[in-house]
Formats: sequence, structure tokens, C-alpha cells
Amino acid sequence: MIRLSHRSVVAPFHAIDIMSEALKLERSGQSIIHLAIGQPSAPTPQRARIAASEMLSHGRIGYTEALGIPALRTRIAHHYQETYGLDISPERVAVTTGSSAAFTLAFLALFDVGDCVAIPTPGYPAYRNILKTLGLDCVEIPTTQESRWTVTPKQIAQAHAKKPLKGIVLASPNNPDGTMMGPDRLEAVVNCCTDYGIRLIMDEIYHGLVYDFPTVSALKFSDDAIVINSFSKYYCMTGWRIGWMIMPEGMARTAECLAQNLALSVNELSQVTALAAFDAKEELEAVKAGYADNREYLLRRLPEIGLTSFHPPDGGFFIYTDVSHLTNDSMVFARDLLHEAGVSVAPGIDFDRHQGAKYIRLSFAGKKDDIEEGCQRIADSIAKKSKTHFPDRGLQS
Amino acid sequence: MIRLSHRSVVAPFHAIDIMSEALKLERSGQSIIHLAIGQPSAPTPQRARIAASEMLSHGRIGYTEALGIPALRTRIAHHYQETYGLDISPERVAVTTGSSAAFTLAFLALFDVGDCVAIPTPGYPAYRNILKTLGLDCVEIPTTQESRWTVTPKQIAQAHAKKPLKGIVLASPNNPDGTMMGPDRLEAVVNCCTDYGIRLIMDEIYHGLVYDFPTVSALKFSDDAIVINSFSKYYCMTGWRIGWMIMPEGMARTAECLAQNLALSVNELSQVTALAAFDAKEELEAVKAGYADNREYLLRRLPEIGLTSFHPPDGGFFIYTDVSHLTNDSMVFARDLLHEAGVSVAPGIDFDRHQGAKYIRLSFAGKKDDIEEGCQRIADSIAKKSKTHFPDRGLQS
Repeated sequence: MIRLSHRSVVAPFHAIDIMSEALKLERSGQSIIHLAIGQPSAPTPQRARIAASEMLSHGRIGYTEALGIPALRTRIAHHYQETYGLDISPERVAVTTGSSAAFTLAFLALFDVGDCVAIPTPGYPAYRNILKTLGLDCVEIPTTQESRWTVTPKQIAQAHAKKPLKGIVLASPNNPDGTMMGPDRLEAVVNCCTDYGIRLIMDEIYHGLVYDFPTVSALKFSDDAIVINSFSKYYCMTGWRIGWMIMPEGMARTAECLAQNLALSVNELSQVTALAAFDAKEELEAVKAGYADNREYLLRRLPEIGLTSFHPPDGGFFIYTDVSHLTNDSMVFARDLLHEAGVSVAPGIDFDRHQGAKYIRLSFAGKKDDIEEGCQRIADSIAKKSKTHFPDRGLQS
Repeated sequence: MIRLSHRSVVAPFHAIDIMSEALKLERSGQSIIHLAIGQPSAPTPQRARIAASEMLSHGRIGYTEALGIPALRTRIAHHYQETYGLDISPERVAVTTGSSAAFTLAFLALFDVGDCVAIPTPGYPAYRNILKTLGLDCVEIPTTQESRWTVTPKQIAQAHAKKPLKGIVLASPNNPDGTMMGPDRLEAVVNCCTDYGIRLIMDEIYHGLVYDFPTVSALKFSDDAIVINSFSKYYCMTGWRIGWMIMPEGMARTAECLAQNLALSVNELSQVTALAAFDAKEELEAVKAGYADNREYLLRRLPEIGLTSFHPPDGGFFIYTDVSHLTNDSMVFARDLLHEAGVSVAPGIDFDRHQGAKYIRLSFAGKKDDIEEGCQRIADSIAKKSKTHFPDRGLQS
């Protein structure tokens, strides 16, 4: 048996395991509805694909500057001007291989082994697992459905009093539930971090996909926050693996040296494609309108099929719903749904190792037809389960 | 001033700094000959680009299985059969974002904070810097020009006796010098690692680019070695950021969980393109013939311009040459060459923090014309320097 490290013992990303299983079933000919993964079914915007094709025809795809080609860094900086009215220098932008690489880069640049970094639960599982494998002490701050899954300054202060925090990772809209902090709450949270000297790493990957809720960047309230974003969600570029990070000025050279060694550079074709994606607003807004439509549909449909306990998401493309009346093990529930009904969903234990056993996350980034069909399959599966568990009631209905 | 971590203090990859400076000068209109970076000037092979174009036209580039699409993992496994006659199961293959991500993945999976891992010097600087930022104790084993820059089992045993080693990272052909261990030496080194329980991580990124030297994979002598490779060099795909790792069987699920969290997945377009690159042998062999030609040219030309002290490289596309008669600071020398003569070279201090001040690395992966022009510029610069330093001799000549 090969001896592996202690720090390599991290939880799987269960939703990806489910997706991999789903892809395998699909390749073997089964019909699968994919609701497990946060992935737009829309293609890469056409304008962006044209830019990619042009570059491909020249043929040479090479290394670039470690923090990204200057044109893209400048364009991302400009994005903060046009979207939020914020003045961000291109030197503060790091282009990264998805937001994933940005998290690793930020954690390494900011924290030493043994430092405490907080995350609220439920939340994106990779935060916890990357922190752990990098030797950081991950402190979980539980939030509740009643508090709309958002963390309060008071909770942060309490956690800090118990164990001094070096950093905290927050997301708004949050994954898996899509709830957001309003501008006042965000400001209070940012100020709380500043007051206690806690470095805030803010995941804004679902910005751009917000439904009737004010969207403010954490950078409005502090230049010391690290903001991470990506071309995966709003820009429909998951598989291109390209994201970015806005850093405080004094961090850029350190991030550059780390990126030179850890990554050399980001995929050049992805960078050129991403640059063009900024000009595809019209196409992307149409995609977003589709999500809004899917969202409305689910808000109506889920209660009909017995899934009644969730918050309407403010942003993103997920609904995080209570299934405790159906299961006490969301992973088993998800596996059963996949194999028996051909629907992939993400088990809540990904996002919250404790309460998550009672929840599943559904993505509505897919096509309307698929979502309708997915709901029907879930409804049938629930009905079948009820029949098995309550055969008398089943016969009566 | 922002407080950064101690572990983020890693050396820059100086060759990339030089490249970034070179790109900046080039964008401002200056003529630059690029000899700093290990990057083929040949485009991505046509067959591979056709596969990329086809995928682009479908439009959807999405997440894949964390360790890579099954077709690519299977094809890479088959590569070991056809190239080395070795039977490698696809389950042992991890597709990664360049060899860079493979190193991080391997180090995290195998070593805990404080573990000792050896590297010979001179060697690829990212080994040292990634090890450091991940909290590992990097032990350098100096090799010499006299010993062809190769490490001996005796040296490994001595280092291990001094400080017990958990692992060692070796490359053959080695970067920056292109020298290789012959099959007997490689076998002895692998056996030495096995005997002492030192995990061998073998960088075989320059396999495929070997000139009249027997090429054997470390996997021939041990299934416990980790072998890392990439599509960047032989396959001319630097900017696509795609590589792979062969692991012992018991490591695959751990690597998968780490990859799910650290990366989600590798660029799907790069994976499909890389798969097709395996069918571009003819085109790639022609590119390699160009390197062989460049190599012959440099072996003849460098002594003419006063660079006489180097080993003819067995593989790869670099020459690592002594410039101690011209400088005692290879970084200053490289910067001067870039700004005064418009030639970028890699300073030896990247590869060897001690002896490296006396060396530079020249890449011959470029076009013949550029290499000829680069040599001429270096020659002129050396002549000019001689005139400045020895004005009398300068006037006489």
C-alpha cells in the first residue's frame, strides 16, 4: 500500500463524483438530466468562439505573462469601472486557471500553515478542502435557513474571539443556496473584517447572475479585500478554466512569483477567448433571461412535487432545498436519483457536512425542457419511494 | 503594507520575468530574439488544431472528470505501451493543467509539511519553489559539469544519511542542461530510491526530444515511481496548459479528490486537442528534426563566439553554457543582453542559486534564422563588452 500524506485526506467533491457517474451512464446510452453541476448548458458565446477560431488559425498558442496578458488584465480592470464604478488598476488583476487556481494562490500568498481561516456553512466545498490540504485550520461558522444562509458580523466576531482568525472566505450570491448579503450587510461584514484584521476573500463568481437584488462588490468597501471571479458562470466558459482575482496592490508581485512557479501561465487561447467574451453581453443577457425563466418555473414547480422548504435564490443558478422528509443521507438520495431516475443532483453534504445530509442542490443553468423533465423524474421517483415506504397511502392516491 | 505569508516568499522564475520584459519590449516595437523560454516556435500540430476547431464549432466547452476524459487517459496509457512497451492502466493516469499542476498534485498527495524532498542542482526552479510554498524542506544535491550534471546513487544515499528523505525529484533529460542518465544509471537510481523508501518523482517532460541517446522511462524499473510529462514540449502545446502524471494504483483516488477541489477539471478543449496531437507524429518528427539541426548549428557556432564550456545536450532543446569569463551575475548579464542586444536568455541562477551565477541557458526550440540571428547578436554584444573592458585589445582587433 502506498504511503500518502495526511494532508491529502480531503473529502471528494461529491457533486463531481455524481457528474462523473452521470457521464459514464450517459456514454453507455442512458438518458441523464444533469442538475448536479453549476454549468451553463449554453455554449461559449459566439463572439468569443470567433476570437478563439482566429487565434487557432494562426496556430501558435504559447506561454504568456504569469498574471495574464496585459490586454485582458486591463479589460478586467475596466469591468470594475463599468459595472461597479470602481477604479481598479490592471496591476491588481491576476488572471488564473479558473477561480480554483485563484483560491490556491490567495491562500498561499496570505496564510501560513496553522493559520485559522473561517468559512460559513453551507458553502462551496473546495474552500474547506483546499484550506485543509494547504495546512490551514478551517473554522466553520454555521448559518441557518432561517437567517437566509448568510453570516452576520456578530458571528464573525464570536468566531474570532474563540480562535483568532487570519482570514475568512465568503460568497455572495452564495453557493449552494443563491442567497446574498444586501449592501448594508456586506458593508458591515467588510468593516468587521477590517476592524479585527481578518483578511476577507470574497467569491463573487455569481455576480452578473442576480435577479432583482442590488449587486455590490466587496471592493466598494475595502481595497484590502481579495475578490475572486471567473468566466465560468455568467460568461458560459466553464471548460476553458479561466478566472481572475483582484488583489491589494502590495500582493501583486508575490502572487506573480507564486503563479510563475505553480502554473507558468494561464491557457493563452482561453485568455484571448475570455477577452472577447466581454463583448458578448447581448448573447449572455439572453442566456441569463433563460435562467430567470427556469428559476420562476422551479419556484412554482418544486412545491408541487413536495419540495417546499427553500429560499428563492437571489442570484446564481441553484436552488438548495430541504429533503429531510425523504432522506437522512443526501448522498444516498442523489445516487439513487441518478441510477433509478436518471437525474443528477448535488448532495448537500458537499456544502455542509452536518446539516447537508438533509439537503440537495439543483442547478437551473440547463435548458428549460431538461429542467421540466428533471422535475418530472424527481416527482415520479418521490412518488415511487412513497409507495414503497407507505404502500397503503400509495394505493389510495 | 499588506501582511503576506512567510511561505509566499519564493524566488521569481527569472526566465519568465525576462520573457515578460521581452514581450513588453516587443510590443513597444523592438526586435527581440527569444531564447529564454522552453517554447517551440512551431505551431500546435495541424491535426490537433482541426480537432480543436471541430469542438469549437459545437460550442460547448464544459467541465470533465477531474482526472481527465476517459479517452485521453486511455490514449496516454497506450502511449506507454507503444513507446516503452510498458503496461500502464488508464486508472493510473491523471490529466493535469500542464506538468505544473501535476507537481503540486503529487507533492500534496505524497508529502506532509516538514518532509524532506531532494532535488539536484542545477534543475527546474519550480520544483524548489513549489516545494517551499507547500511547506516542504527542499534539500539540494549539487551536481557538477564534470559529472555531466547527473546525480549518482551514492549522492542520494549520502543526502539521505544526513537528513532522511521522503522524496526526490529528478529529470532526464535534465533542464537546463539536457543531459540524461543512461538506462543503467537510471535503474541504479530507481533501485536506490526503492531501497531507502524515497519516493521518486520523475520528470520526463523532454522525452520524445532525445538525440541519439537511449530513452527509458523510470516506470520500467518501478511501478512506485511517479512520472510526470506534458504536451508542452514534444507536442508543441505550451499555451494549452496540459500535461499528465502516471501514479501508483493506490494514489489515484486521493489524486482525484485533490484535483476535484484544487482544479475541478482540466480545460476540455485542451484535452480534446491533446488527444488528437498523438496522431500528429509526422509533423512533430519534422519539428524535432529542426531542433536537431539547430542543436548541430549551436554546437559549432557557440565555440566560435567564445562560449566553449558546455555539454552537448542529449535531449530537450537547451544548452547550458558557462559564461563566467563574461560575468559573475547571470541575471545582470541576461538583462543587459535583452536591453542592449535584443536577445532573451535564461539566467543560470534560476536553476542553481549558487553556481548558476556563472551560467546561462539558451533555447534552441525556435526557428533556425532566429537562432542564427540570436548568436550574432550575442557575439556582437560580447565583442562590445570586450572593447569596453579591454579597450586596447578592442582597438587592436
